[in-house]
Amino acid sequence: MTFTIKPSGVITLLSDFGWDDPYVGVMKGVILSINQRANMVDLAHTVEAGSVLNGALIILEAFPFFPEGTVHVAVIDPGVGGERRPLVVGVAGHLFVGPDNGLFWPVLETHGKGHVIHLKESRYFLDSISHTFHGRDVFAPVAAHLSMGVDPNQMGVTIKDPVPLPLPKPGERGEGLLKGQIIRVDRFGNLITNIHLNDLKPFLGAETPIVQVGPIVVHGLHKTYSDVSKGERLALLGSFGYLEISVNMGRACDQMGLEGKKLLGEEVKVFKSKETS
Amino acid sequence: MTFTIKPSGVITLLSDFGWDDPYVGVMKGVILSINQRANMVDLAHTVEAGSVLNGALIILEAFPFFPEGTVHVAVIDPGVGGERRPLVVGVAGHLFVGPDNGLFWPVLETHGKGHVIHLKESRYFLDSISHTFHGRDVFAPVAAHLSMGVDPNQMGVTIKDPVPLPLPKPGERGEGLLKGQIIRVDRFGNLITNIHLNDLKPFLGAETPIVQVGPIVVHGLHKTYSDVSKGERLALLGSFGYLEISVNMGRACDQMGLEGKKLLGEEVKVFKSKETS
Amino acid sequence: MTFTIKPSGVITLLSDFGWDDPYVGVMKGVILSINQRANMVDLAHTVEAGSVLNGALIILEAFPFFPEGTVHVAVIDPGVGGERRPLVVGVAGHLFVGPDNGLFWPVLETHGKGHVIHLKESRYFLDSISHTFHGRDVFAPVAAHLSMGVDPNQMGVTIKDPVPLPLPKPGERGEGLLKGQIIRVDRFGNLITNIHLNDLKPFLGAETPIVQVGPIVVHGLHKTYSDVSKGERLALLGSFGYLEISVNMGRACDQMGLEGKKLLGEEVKVFKSKETS
Repeated sequence: MTFTIKPSGVITLLSDFGWDDPYVGVMKGVILSINQRANMVDLAHTVEAGSVLNGALIILEAFPFFPEGTVHVAVIDPGVGGERRPLVVGVAGHLFVGPDNGLFWPVLETHGKGHVIHLKESRYFLDSISHTFHGRDVFAPVAAHLSMGVDPNQMGVTIKDPVPLPLPKPGERGEGLLKGQIIRVDRFGNLITNIHLNDLKPFLGAETPIVQVGPIVVHGLHKTYSDVSKGERLALLGSFGYLEISVNMGRACDQMGLEGKKLLGEEVKVFKSKETS
Repeated sequence: MTFTIKPSGVITLLSDFGWDDPYVGVMKGVILSINQRANMVDLAHTVEAGSVLNGALIILEAFPFFPEGTVHVAVIDPGVGGERRPLVVGVAGHLFVGPDNGLFWPVLETHGKGHVIHLKESRYFLDSISHTFHGRDVFAPVAAHLSMGVDPNQMGVTIKDPVPLPLPKPGERGEGLLKGQIIRVDRFGNLITNIHLNDLKPFLGAETPIVQVGPIVVHGLHKTYSDVSKGERLALLGSFGYLEISVNMGRACDQMGLEGKKLLGEEVKVFKSKETS
Repeated sequence: MTFTIKPSGVITLLSDFGWDDPYVGVMKGVILSINQRANMVDLAHTVEAGSVLNGALIILEAFPFFPEGTVHVAVIDPGVGGERRPLVVGVAGHLFVGPDNGLFWPVLETHGKGHVIHLKESRYFLDSISHTFHGRDVFAPVAAHLSMGVDPNQMGVTIKDPVPLPLPKPGERGEGLLKGQIIRVDRFGNLITNIHLNDLKPFLGAETPIVQVGPIVVHGLHKTYSDVSKGERLALLGSFGYLEISVNMGRACDQMGLEGKKLLGEEVKVFKSKETS
C-alpha cells in the first residue's frame, strides 16, 4: 500500500496549548526551519486541555475545507512521553500527524481506506527529543517534511490497530424517537448536537419534528436564525450538517440557565410530532 | 464605473467567531483551496457577537495600513441567512467583502467614491451554500477570487443603496464645548473616544482644553503617557488620531470604578479652559 | 563590527497588545506594505501589559527554534513615547527589534557577542510617528526592512550600554541546597521554575533530589508526566530545560490552593535527599 498524496504546502495546527505560552509559535519556528515555504493555518489552540474528543470533532469538521494534500498536525496529547505511538495517517487525500490516541479516528471511520504509519525514523525528528513536548520535537518536524513531499512510508511502519475513539452517536429508541447529545456550545451560544442530517431523515417527512433539550421544546426545523422572531428559540441544521438549538440574536445556552460547558453531553431528543403529547 | 484595483494578494479577516471554534480556520482553508498564495492576516475575531459598529470601527482604523489592493473580509453578520445582501465594496484602493449591514459604511463615508457590488454570481461561491455560515460559503471564496484578480463587476450588480451605519459623531454645543463619547476601551484600559484631532482643532489655541468623562476631569493634552507621573491621568491624541483618556502605567478604565465594557457610549466633554469653572 | 546575518524572511511578533484590538493586525499590514513576502509568526500577544520580564523569557526560550536570520519584533513598551531608545540587536544569528528596556538582555547575556544599534534613521520608519504606537510606526517597518536584507548599521549607531534586565537566578545556599523561583505557570498548570538543568547537575548524583514549593514536597526527578500515577505530583525537567512541578493529568497550580498568577515568584527549594529530614 502506498501514499499517493501530493502535498499542498499547507499545514494546519490544532492543540490545547492556548495562546499565552510560546508553544504554538515554537512549533511554527521548527516547521519554518525545515520548510520555509510552509503555509500554516491555526485551526484552534484553546481546546480544553487533554480533550481528545473535542480535538477530534474539530478535525473531522474542518479538514475537508482545506486543499487536498494538506498536512494537519494535532497535538492534544495527555499521554506525551509515555507509551503512545506517534502517527502519520493518510486518508481522504489529506495527511494527519499526531499522537495515537484517537484524534484521527473519526476521520478514518467516516472517510475509510486510511493508511496509518507508526513514526519511527528519528531522522525526521529534531535532534534532541524532550519527554514532554513532542509537538515541537516530533510532530512539527514530521509535518514539515511531509509538506515537502517526503513519503510517509519512509518515516515508519504501517500499523493496523490505531487507538479508536468512539464518537457519541445518536441512538434511536423505538419508532419516531431519536436520542443524541450536545457536543459543542459555540461562541454564539448555539447548542450543537451529534445528530446529523442523515440521522434526521426519517423525521423530515410530513410531520414536523420536535426537538427537546432539558426543559426546552422546539417545534419544527428552520433554515436560519432569522426565520423566527428576535429572542425566539429554534432548531436548525447547522453549517456542518448537525442539528443545533439556537436563539435568533440570542444565546440558547443562556436560556438553559446553565453555563456553556456544563451543557456538553446533555441529552437531546427528537420526536415525530404525532408523538409529542 | 469600473474597478481599477490591482490585488496585493493580501486578505485580512475580521469576525466575531472567536478562537475556540474552527470557523476562522475553515474560512482560511476555503481561501487556500482557491488561491494557494493568499497571504492572510487576522484583524480581530473577538469582536462582540453581532456588533457591526465595533467591527466597522476596526476596519476603518486598520485598513489604511495594508497595501493597496488588499481584500478585507469581514463577517459580523447577525442577519445571515435572511434578506441582507452580500457585498463587495471597492474604495480607497482596497476591496471589502461581507454582508450589507453597514460594516463598510464608515470607510465609504470617510474615503468617498466607493463602488458597491451586490454579489450574485454563484460560480464564485462554494458549490453548496449553508444558511448560517456565509463567511465560509460566500465571503471567503469571493475574497480568494478577488485576491487573484477577478473583476468584482463580474460577480454581481452595482448598487447605490448600501445599508448605512451612522457612526456616533461628536456634536458641538455652544461656543467652546464639544461632546463625544467613549467608543472603545483597549487592553491597556485606555478610554478611546470618537473625537478626532480635526474636531479638536478649535480647542487647541492659546487656552488649554479640559476633558471630562463622568467625574474625571483632565487638564490639557499631552503627547504621551510618560509626560505625566506614574499613576496620573492624562488626555492625549492616540495613535489613530482620536482623543484618549489614559493613565501612565495604569488603567484609566479602572479609575472610573467601572468595568471596561460598561464605559462604551459614556459621554466625553471637551471645554476651552476659560469656560471650566 | 558588522552584521553578517542573512535574513530568512521570517518575522516573529511578540507583544502585550492582546487579540481584541487591531494593533497586531495593523503591524502586520505595515510589514506587508514594505515586504510582501514577509513570513510572519505570532509568538504571543497576551503577555501581561508592560511585563518586560515575561516577554524576555518568551523570547529567550522561543527564538532558537526559528531559522537563522529571523527578525524578532517585540513590543512590550511601557516607556513608549518617552526617552527609551528603539533598538536592533544582532546576536546568535538572529535579529531583534524593539524598545531598549531589557527585552533582549537575556538573549545577549546567554548567547554573548551581540551587536546593539540605536535606531535613528527615520527613512526606515513610517512617515508619521505617533507618540504611543512605535510598534506600528518604528518597529514593524524596521523589521520589514531587515527581513529584506537592509544592513542594521545603516539604521543607526552602535551602542554599548543597552538597558540590562537581570533575570531572577537560582542561588545556592550552603552545601546541597538550591533556591529558585516559579517564573511561569503554563496553561496546563505546570509550575515552571528558573532552575535550569545546568544548575541541577550537582543534585543529580547518587542521591535523589527533593523539590519543595510552599507546602508541597516532591521526591526525585521524573522524565515525563505518566511516570507517576494519574493525579500524582512530580518534578521533571521541562521541554526547555527548566525544572517544573507538575501533576500527571492534573494541574499543579491548583494543588497549591492558589490561582496561577499568584504563584509567580514563589520560592522553590531543591535539596539533596540526605538533607531532607
